[in-house]
Order: sequence, then C-alpha cells, then structure tokens
Amino acid sequence: MRETPVTQRELDAVIGAASSLELFHAAALVHDDVIDNSDTRRGEPSAHRRFAERHEARRWAGDAAGFGTSAAILLGDLLLGWSDELLDDALSELGHPERARAARRLFNTMRTEVTAGQYLDVLEENAWVERDEEQLLDAARRVVIFKSAKYSIESPLLIGAALGGASETQLETLAEFGLPLGIAFQLRDDLLGVFGDAAVTGKPSGDDLREGKRTMLVALTRSRVSASVRRVFDELLGDPRLDTEQVLMLQGAMRDSGAVDEIEGIIDREVRRANAALDEASLAPEAIAALRKLTARVTDREA
Amino acid sequence: MRETPVTQRELDAVIGAASSLELFHAAALVHDDVIDNSDTRRGEPSAHRRFAERHEARRWAGDAAGFGTSAAILLGDLLLGWSDELLDDALSELGHPERARAARRLFNTMRTEVTAGQYLDVLEENAWVERDEEQLLDAARRVVIFKSAKYSIESPLLIGAALGGASETQLETLAEFGLPLGIAFQLRDDLLGVFGDAAVTGKPSGDDLREGKRTMLVALTRSRVSASVRRVFDELLGDPRLDTEQVLMLQGAMRDSGAVDEIEGIIDREVRRANAALDEASLAPEAIAALRKLTARVTDREA
Repeated sequence: MRETPVTQRELDAVIGAASSLELFHAAALVHDDVIDNSDTRRGEPSAHRRFAERHEARRWAGDAAGFGTSAAILLGDLLLGWSDELLDDALSELGHPERARAARRLFNTMRTEVTAGQYLDVLEENAWVERDEEQLLDAARRVVIFKSAKYSIESPLLIGAALGGASETQLETLAEFGLPLGIAFQLRDDLLGVFGDAAVTGKPSGDDLREGKRTMLVALTRSRVSASVRRVFDELLGDPRLDTEQVLMLQGAMRDSGAVDEIEGIIDREVRRANAALDEASLAPEAIAALRKLTARVTDREA
Repeated sequence: MRETPVTQRELDAVIGAASSLELFHAAALVHDDVIDNSDTRRGEPSAHRRFAERHEARRWAGDAAGFGTSAAILLGDLLLGWSDELLDDALSELGHPERARAARRLFNTMRTEVTAGQYLDVLEENAWVERDEEQLLDAARRVVIFKSAKYSIESPLLIGAALGGASETQLETLAEFGLPLGIAFQLRDDLLGVFGDAAVTGKPSGDDLREGKRTMLVALTRSRVSASVRRVFDELLGDPRLDTEQVLMLQGAMRDSGAVDEIEGIIDREVRRANAALDEASLAPEAIAALRKLTARVTDREA
C-alpha cells in the first residue's frame, strides 16, 4: 500500500499518458471506420465520410470516396504520432526514468498487441471459411484478448500503475483483475453489437451482423446449431444489406441456440474472477473501491 | 568542430535512430501505396496487393481488395509503432537526456510535417480545380517542402546531429544545407516520375501522370501553355488508363513549354545554395566531404 501522497508531477504524467491513450484510441477508430466501411461513429459521420462529403460539396476532381479514405488514413497517422508525442512529453517530465521506462514498455506492448489483434479480427472476417468450429472459437477468443481486453482495461491500468511506481506484485494483481474484466467488457460489447438499442449505442441495431464480425457469440452459435441453420447463418452474416427481418432471424438463432446464455455465463464468471483478484490485493482501499466500481460500469451497460 | 571521438553509445543511438526512420519510411510507403492505389513498389507487388493476392489464392470470404487495404493500413500502423519504439530505445540508451530530447523534438516535428505534407499532396490532387495558377504553384511548392525536402534530407540530418550534441550554429548550417538539397531531390524525383526509365526506377514510365500528381513541374507547365493546351492537359492528367502516346504528348508539352528547363534551373540553384551553406560551416572536414558527396548522389541520379 502506498503511503506517500501523489505528487503534482505524477498527476501530470498520468494526465499526459491518459491523453496519449485517448489520441491513440481516436487514431484506431479513424482507421477502424475505414477498415469496417462504417459511415457513422458515435452518431456522427465517420472521419472518412466527413472528408468525402467535403469533396462532394466542393465538387473537387477525382473520387470522393477515395479522397475520404486517403485523408482518414493520414488523419489516423497524424493522431498516432501525436499520441506518441504526448506520452513522451509526459514520461520525460515525470522525473522517474525507471518508472517512465516501465510505462513506455507497457505502452509499446499494448500498441503492438492491439494492432495485431485488429489484424486477426479482419483476417477472421475473411479467413473463417477455412477454419473448423474449434479453430473459430480459438480465433474469436484471441481477438477478444488482444484487440480488446488487454487494450481496453489491462494495459491502461498497468501503465498508470507503472507511473505511480507500482511493485511487481501490484502489477500482477492489476493484470489478474484487468484481463478478465476486459474480456467481460468485450463480450458485453458483442452482445450490444447484435442486440443493442440503436438509440442508446449510437450504432444501427444489428450492425455487427452486417459487418460480419466473427465474434465469440457467432462462433458459439455456429457450434450449437444444425448444419443447415449454420449455412443460412454464414450466408447472411456479413451481408451489408441485411433487413430487419433477417437481423431478427439471426438474433433468434443466437438466443435459441443457447449461445447468448453461454456468453452471459462467461461474462459473470470473468467479472467474478476480476473481483476475486481484488480480494487480497495489496492496493490502497480507495483504489480497490474505484476498481470495483469499474467492474459494474464496464459490464452492466447499455451502450 | 568536434574534437572527441564518437563513442559506442552515440554510434548505437545513431544506428537506432536511422532504423527508426527507415521503419517510419516503410510505414509511409505502405500507406502511400494504398492512397495512390499503386500496385507495385520497388518492382514488387505493394503490401496491399500482396495481402489481396493471398486472399484470392486462399479463396477467402469477402472482398480481396478490401482485405488488402485493411491489412495494409494495419501493417503501416504496426510499423509506425515500431519506428517509435526503436527511436525511444535508442534515445534512452544514449546517456544524454538533453540531446535525446532535442532529437525527439526534431523527430516529432518531422513526423507531423510529412504527414501533413502528404495530406496537402492528396488534397491538391483533388482540390486543384478551385485554384488559380499562382495558388497551384504555391501549393506544389509547399508539398515539396513538407512532404519531401524536410523529411528526406533536412530532418534526418538534424536528428543525427542532435544525437551527436551539435551546437545551434551547426544545426542551422545543416538546415541551410538540407532544405535546398531536399527541394532539389524532390524536383529531380518529379522529373524522373514523368521522364524516368521504368527499368531503372522500378515504376512504369509516366506513372506520376496517371496518378495525377500536381507537382511543381505540372504547375509550371500549366502556367506556360495556352488555355486550350491546358484543358487537354487537365483532362488527361490523372487518368489511370493513359496510353503511351498520351504520355508522350504530356511529356512533350512539359518540355516544349520550357517547364522542364525551368525545373532543371531550380535544381541547379538549390544545389548551389546547399553547397554554399557548407563553405564556411563549422563542421568536421570529413562531415563536409560526406555532405558534398551526398549532393551529387541526390541530384545526379536516374532512379
């Protein structure tokens, strides 16, 4: 347990690192929207759409969609650079070179893992045709861990802790807490991507089905239905023109197969695991209380 | 002039920073090829084409071209991250925090400038229709400076010099040398992009014309030809299906207008300016000799 109060320098470094993560995330979203061909983000036009609209409005030469994509790729690159710049500034002003190195290494690992995880996700949206049921489930699990769980919860926690001079034991505890919570977070996200209320999530309902995301929910459903239902499933999933009735059918198949209940069961189990990691944690009581609040916010949500 | 020999640590840092720049450049090329829709790079299939070919060969689900683009965006992102990681490792092992900060700041500026310069380039390929002759020339000049001149020559020189503990005066000299040489480098590149021999450059002859790059060469030509020739020029430039005859016609218009001679004149002038910056430079004689060699290599080339 930490005895000394947090210094202004440490606070500044945490704010700088958090800003850096936020810009990194913005970059990832800008590139993701190009990759997923998403027209909207948080209820507004996505970056590449916005650039394309500008092109159309000004009647520029060439192809509006192509300009949108190009500009969004570069915007993402710019944000990636600035994310890095912010982190570097924060770390160099911390006044603790060894903590700065530890935080930087964690950031580097996170960046590589989430980019590779995103590639695995894209790969599976295309390569799933050559996988068997078990491989599909493994692949979906790997995407959850690398694209989401570590990136969304575990890594940011570890980076912040490293800035504060956390011990090896404390870092281990935070990893044991963060990874299962991150898994629960993503599984909740997958359920919302299929069953979520568009008015709350800001994304059209069933959007994940139209994009053809090969989530664990999809992999579990496929492993639980008959070959004939599976064929219909594979035909519809990823079709950008799915209508409401088709979305309802896919949702029904997921629920009826028991896959939704199984995912809810995994979420419960992972949340319990995350909470258990805090039970004997050598962390400050305020920190433990904040982390417990986080588990509720992350998993009991509608958007 | 530096009196002490270069230490092993300094040498390692320079190698690390150079590797970092190389990976940054690789990232930029991977994204550029997506942006420019280039099928080849250095005589081989570009990264996005390579991913698309893999998709085709394996008969995966979904769209091969879309998969290629997505995978290449992520590959570029991965390389951007690794570039940063290499630089960070190099700087943290240099053992000179203030030199490391100076080099890092120069790197950050370079990264922002070249990304913005690349955006300006893409923008002008589309927005040129709403510019007058003078604006077009200004825009082309700005692209040369930010997308190329600073990035290719000035910034790498300054970063290396900062690692070696260069004085303010030395940094100024290197900027006065590097910027004009970088401009000459890019103008030579523009000429090669239009008139270069495909067997030597590794790119199909006239490729810049098919891409519709709005270079200084194009801007100068447009300002020197009649309105009717300019109209033909604007119609053909950027048409990916240009045949050999059309390429020859555009090449002829550029030469006959005097624009090619004018560009050659600017290259000569910028090279002289770069060399003049070395005349009274307070740099080691070996460094000056190496930089003079660089001017020849950069501007008298066929690829």
